[in-house]
Amino acid sequence: MTSFRHLKSVVRLNELAEDPLDLTIEGAITSKRIDAMIAQALGFQLFYAMERVSETTLTALSDLSVETQAVLKMTQMQSGEVVNFIEGYESEQRPALHTAVRDFFEQRNTAESAAEATKLAYKECEKLREFLNDIENKGNFTDMVQIGIGGSDLGPKAVYLALEAFHKPHRRVHFVSNVDPDDPSHVFQQIDLEKTLVVVVSKSGSTLETLTNEQFAREKFKKAGLNPKNHFLAVTGKGSPMDDPQQYAASFYIWDYIGGRYSATSMVGGVILAFALGMDRFLEFLRGASAMDKIALKQDPKANLPLLSALLGVWNRNFLSCPTTAIIPYSQALSRFPAHLQQLDMESNGKQIDKRGNAVDFDTGPIIWGEPGTNGQHSFYQSIHQGTTVVPLEFLGFKESQYRDDIVFRGTTCQEKLLANLLAQSIALAVGQESDNPNKFFPGNRPNRILFGQRLDPYAMGAILAYYEHKVVFQGFIWNINSFDQEGVQLGKKLALKIIDQMAALKQKKPLDPKVFPLGAAYLKHIQ
Amino acid sequence: MTSFRHLKSVVRLNELAEDPLDLTIEGAITSKRIDAMIAQALGFQLFYAMERVSETTLTALSDLSVETQAVLKMTQMQSGEVVNFIEGYESEQRPALHTAVRDFFEQRNTAESAAEATKLAYKECEKLREFLNDIENKGNFTDMVQIGIGGSDLGPKAVYLALEAFHKPHRRVHFVSNVDPDDPSHVFQQIDLEKTLVVVVSKSGSTLETLTNEQFAREKFKKAGLNPKNHFLAVTGKGSPMDDPQQYAASFYIWDYIGGRYSATSMVGGVILAFALGMDRFLEFLRGASAMDKIALKQDPKANLPLLSALLGVWNRNFLSCPTTAIIPYSQALSRFPAHLQQLDMESNGKQIDKRGNAVDFDTGPIIWGEPGTNGQHSFYQSIHQGTTVVPLEFLGFKESQYRDDIVFRGTTCQEKLLANLLAQSIALAVGQESDNPNKFFPGNRPNRILFGQRLDPYAMGAILAYYEHKVVFQGFIWNINSFDQEGVQLGKKLALKIIDQMAALKQKKPLDPKVFPLGAAYLKHIQ
Repeated sequence: MTSFRHLKSVVRLNELAEDPLDLTIEGAITSKRIDAMIAQALGFQLFYAMERVSETTLTALSDLSVETQAVLKMTQMQSGEVVNFIEGYESEQRPALHTAVRDFFEQRNTAESAAEATKLAYKECEKLREFLNDIENKGNFTDMVQIGIGGSDLGPKAVYLALEAFHKPHRRVHFVSNVDPDDPSHVFQQIDLEKTLVVVVSKSGSTLETLTNEQFAREKFKKAGLNPKNHFLAVTGKGSPMDDPQQYAASFYIWDYIGGRYSATSMVGGVILAFALGMDRFLEFLRGASAMDKIALKQDPKANLPLLSALLGVWNRNFLSCPTTAIIPYSQALSRFPAHLQQLDMESNGKQIDKRGNAVDFDTGPIIWGEPGTNGQHSFYQSIHQGTTVVPLEFLGFKESQYRDDIVFRGTTCQEKLLANLLAQSIALAVGQESDNPNKFFPGNRPNRILFGQRLDPYAMGAILAYYEHKVVFQGFIWNINSFDQEGVQLGKKLALKIIDQMAALKQKKPLDPKVFPLGAAYLKHIQ
Repeated sequence: MTSFRHLKSVVRLNELAEDPLDLTIEGAITSKRIDAMIAQALGFQLFYAMERVSETTLTALSDLSVETQAVLKMTQMQSGEVVNFIEGYESEQRPALHTAVRDFFEQRNTAESAAEATKLAYKECEKLREFLNDIENKGNFTDMVQIGIGGSDLGPKAVYLALEAFHKPHRRVHFVSNVDPDDPSHVFQQIDLEKTLVVVVSKSGSTLETLTNEQFAREKFKKAGLNPKNHFLAVTGKGSPMDDPQQYAASFYIWDYIGGRYSATSMVGGVILAFALGMDRFLEFLRGASAMDKIALKQDPKANLPLLSALLGVWNRNFLSCPTTAIIPYSQALSRFPAHLQQLDMESNGKQIDKRGNAVDFDTGPIIWGEPGTNGQHSFYQSIHQGTTVVPLEFLGFKESQYRDDIVFRGTTCQEKLLANLLAQSIALAVGQESDNPNKFFPGNRPNRILFGQRLDPYAMGAILAYYEHKVVFQGFIWNINSFDQEGVQLGKKLALKIIDQMAALKQKKPLDPKVFPLGAAYLKHIQ
């Protein structure tokens, strides 16, 4: 494959980027443009009239997806081909089969490894349903604490908060992730251990933070005179150090072809979500994700929402040179979803080499950040409207609220005010404003798009989660980077273990070897 | 004043930036460098050996602070001179006296307007103490809901979460900010209204989100047969539409010289923090902030922690061209502090004109984002270590935990593991790693610094809050921009009101005037 910068479509896009569409000139954005620039699927509309693209740009972006075989690679990924590799170097050499673990509804993927993965995942779902029925019948557990970090925390927590409006009565859930002891201390102060299940989530069974917090939790149970074995569940890889029936009341499996950041629809999210929401709602969530997986196989970007979003993102990143992307849900329930997407996107595509091991000579994944609207409007929007660094925005919005509990105030409901703000910001950012007072001048040309749905329910949440998973993966395919490994987290881990050893030695009053990691020792001297 | 790019020190810094210190070369970072590059104040250490600065760079940065009269301007600000203005154009024309509202402890600022502001603020504190004593004696309220948005939400909430470990037993607090009806629905489902106070915070008394949520809340009380007047408190400007004793059980005042994002130490944060933590702890928090205010008046950057941090930030932003800054607290209690700093920094310094109304020809405030460590290590650190966009980091850490509830696991405590990770990341990001496998190559030269304290208690939190307030303000002084207004939020507000009108008309089946804001109408057509 030709390297990114030399692709025909990239050369063409570079030409177009010399004079991108100016959204601030009279007549650039019209009602007709808004009508025309909507992609639709599964009850969602993707509005993209406020992006700095003309039809010519869109054609060139579509050519880019063809030239990079993005959809073919998506098909291969969903079929279980090895997509997690770096050619010619030691690498993980695996498929990425997160779509298979939710392919229960039409069982459409018949490729052998995908079908096998689906079968295995379904078995875990059945096991989970039985386990939860048993709890339900005995009525002995009200609370669940999930101990996990990274993908074992951010996705499940973001999805839980997104769907908390649908939770089962008298069920409460909590998350412990940080090795900071104040994190578990704070959580375990609030719960009745006797009625609490703890689900420990680590694919490898060896994540230091998670094992430490598990130990912290087990000691709490022991001190309370309770046998941890009756309260602890494991979500881990088969055969991992945590796959031990002596230690856990039940174990649920994940596999090496499910990356942490792509694992919310596996048992990593499944146990706590099904406990909190009920099994049927969890399955609805999977059904929405699986439906979006199918959308991601369409060739035409206008029918393939995540592909279209990926291409617009590449335009903003590589051709308009924007270093970041803000994700702004106009939905308080999605307050932690940007944090999940921050991991999903930045850990997948924050890479410096392509799949042949060559250093890239173009920008890969942007910095992802965001907070809900309208809150952000009273915070960082000043900079988004008038700052010196242009921030492309991806908005999310819904027609209806979740609780359906609303008032009319000054002629409109809260929900209507929320949506009015969303639409107004989308326009204001694109169009800007002239003024004689330089402080009231808005340069406009801040690109943005809106993913708009009917209501944030389990099905919609599954679809949105998968939409972003595929957006990220498509960008990885287009850049020809490996979106499924994370070598960049290893160095810090390695050095942390060295400092932990130095700390342990100091505690035992042993002198430190001055030749071993002196920088660690230098820092330690000052914080003792 | 000479414009930024033509300052002598800026010309010098530009020369130095052509060949910035390479932290990855053998011997660039030594134990000696770590020892030497520590600034100290109030029990905090600021470690900055991992920034890409030599002593020559530091001298030039110090010259920049002298040339821009940064400390003189800080002194003027704290004395109540008008700092919120744009020369020759309509602007707010006010002082910024957030330091005065906490200057109770030594009453050191004798400038008339500052001293008057201190006196007024002290009166509100006394009023609050009486009010809370009264509640305490009657024992009739257990919960408090704060309704506010932006500065009336992010700062108070971040500080509350930071100090939750010190909260009074049987007191719970909640925050409602978003005009999304699911936000108040979710909160009001969880509380016993009879035992709940609602504090409504809006300086102008006219913030649409806040008034809407207040109405939402009042209807809940009325439906429950309770008289809102006995439960609602106001924090607002004297004479605002909310300054109405018929509607509120008590009112606490703020003034136009306290910007929303600088208001956490005024009654905006005071009422809910003192309710949750007790008045004495709230005063300790103010005492810490006030002590840092004094540090910010020192000429020498090495004694003036916020000034040093501001200068290093300017180096990274303007000379090393980094578009963002990540704030990473190694403390779960500070989980929402980056969101507060995002507002504080981006709303203050996300500006495109200088104080004379000229468009700037250099970059102003960066994009601020962040999540706690060690969590981030399992999320976006991949991109920070190996991505194509360099992210400078500001770490926070503490020697001791808050709850002092810890275990020893594999030879070290959780707190020790937390700190080992912090120090290891700081070194790994700077030094990088060579490798024959390109996927295991770490380029290093990721600049970072650590603000390190003993323990996150109310005094320390006050000091940290003020440290960041002053860092931001110093950068504004250095760039000669107005860090105290926020004209950039007006356009979106204006267009939102237009769409709200269109929605109200549509509800009444009135046809829309096709000449009035057709883009709003075009969007609305698709989401009806």
